[in-house]
Amino acid sequence: MKERDVEAIVLVSGGMDSLVAAAIAAKKHKQLALLHMNYGQRTEARELKSFTEIADFYKVPVQRRLVVDTTFLKQIGGSSLTDMSIDVTKYKGESKEIPSSYVPFRNTHIIAIAVSWAEVIGAKKIYIGAVHEDSSGYPDCRPSYYQAMNNLIREGTPKGDIEVITPIISLSKKEIVQKALELKAPIEFSYSCYERNDKACGICDSCALRLRGFELAGITDPIEYVTRPLYGKKES
Amino acid sequence: MKERDVEAIVLVSGGMDSLVAAAIAAKKHKQLALLHMNYGQRTEARELKSFTEIADFYKVPVQRRLVVDTTFLKQIGGSSLTDMSIDVTKYKGESKEIPSSYVPFRNTHIIAIAVSWAEVIGAKKIYIGAVHEDSSGYPDCRPSYYQAMNNLIREGTPKGDIEVITPIISLSKKEIVQKALELKAPIEFSYSCYERNDKACGICDSCALRLRGFELAGITDPIEYVTRPLYGKKES
Repeated sequence: MKERDVEAIVLVSGGMDSLVAAAIAAKKHKQLALLHMNYGQRTEARELKSFTEIADFYKVPVQRRLVVDTTFLKQIGGSSLTDMSIDVTKYKGESKEIPSSYVPFRNTHIIAIAVSWAEVIGAKKIYIGAVHEDSSGYPDCRPSYYQAMNNLIREGTPKGDIEVITPIISLSKKEIVQKALELKAPIEFSYSCYERNDKACGICDSCALRLRGFELAGITDPIEYVTRPLYGKKES
Repeated sequence: MKERDVEAIVLVSGGMDSLVAAAIAAKKHKQLALLHMNYGQRTEARELKSFTEIADFYKVPVQRRLVVDTTFLKQIGGSSLTDMSIDVTKYKGESKEIPSSYVPFRNTHIIAIAVSWAEVIGAKKIYIGAVHEDSSGYPDCRPSYYQAMNNLIREGTPKGDIEVITPIISLSKKEIVQKALELKAPIEFSYSCYERNDKACGICDSCALRLRGFELAGITDPIEYVTRPLYGKKES
């Protein structure tokens, strides 16, 4: 991990949002590194497949891919994604209640790992596909959280010159789908389901937000689903 | 990990500073939980022994002790503590250059883990034995870093009611030794060496700062050293 010409690290869970973040970063930077976190989530096997396919698509060399184990988040629990005794929340429409899929302080872990790695490989930018408005209401997806994070990085690193970038934080899921098409991002490799490893369930919070985005964009999601309910509503 | 009556989590590396932080927390709170991080550092075997002895001393039940694996920090490297090909910096007196023992963004990882755990077990305070003035000059030991961290926690958690406390950040090593004695903390269980697992080397940066503290306090450090140079100087 001693390359010094990497410009940006992209956090790639394998979902559609992180794919679009990678597509935006790939357009702007020649030398990317991709980071994926295994925190003992239900769908890690499937996510890792997506991560690898996305990394292959953007021609990121193997030595610039880092998969880290943070299964202490499973030890700690408190989320339906890591605790099999808690049900994954089904989509509840416009509810702003934080769903059971919330993993306590998760994004701080993945960003902190990216910052440690960035310090070593010399990257100055960290891209994350966090989405605020059209999201599940997680506190670590708010713009104010990322302002606070960038301030922490300035205070907590020797040079203070690493920055987290949230290129799609203000987009709706519909706009994210449109952006993916515009950038010719390989949507077929992305996977957003919280529940199943074989094919997307279509009913968890994450599937519902994704399917609604495609529906509003008038596009068919190319990945396989167990069921594809209609989630569309009049655009606000 | 479902206890809800824990008041505070203490980060216990096993060194003298974290011991004194635990002693201060134990005086203030009845129900403590202790957290230790294995990041692939050279002296983890010895640190874990200290962690266990300190936890036993303060009668922290086993289910309130959490040892987490963050050996991705060793994968990432960039520090003499995790990369055996980099020499551990010897004490250089008043130099403010960051020594090779600096682990990129390390304290953010341990604090983020504590915050995730605190959310699940209901703890509101997180104690860390960070020391600023009389330290190695790590950026993640500055008071401004902890202000930024507390701001991040407010923005990044659902309730925003968890706080990091740095009870010894302004103390000198001499004052930390005096505080340990005052609180009857079991100094003999603590271990600060960065280099060796069998007995403290006496010459790494961490040993030097500790030995100087004891010297200035006029106390003999009860733990075993390979060598005990004199580091004292006129107190400023």
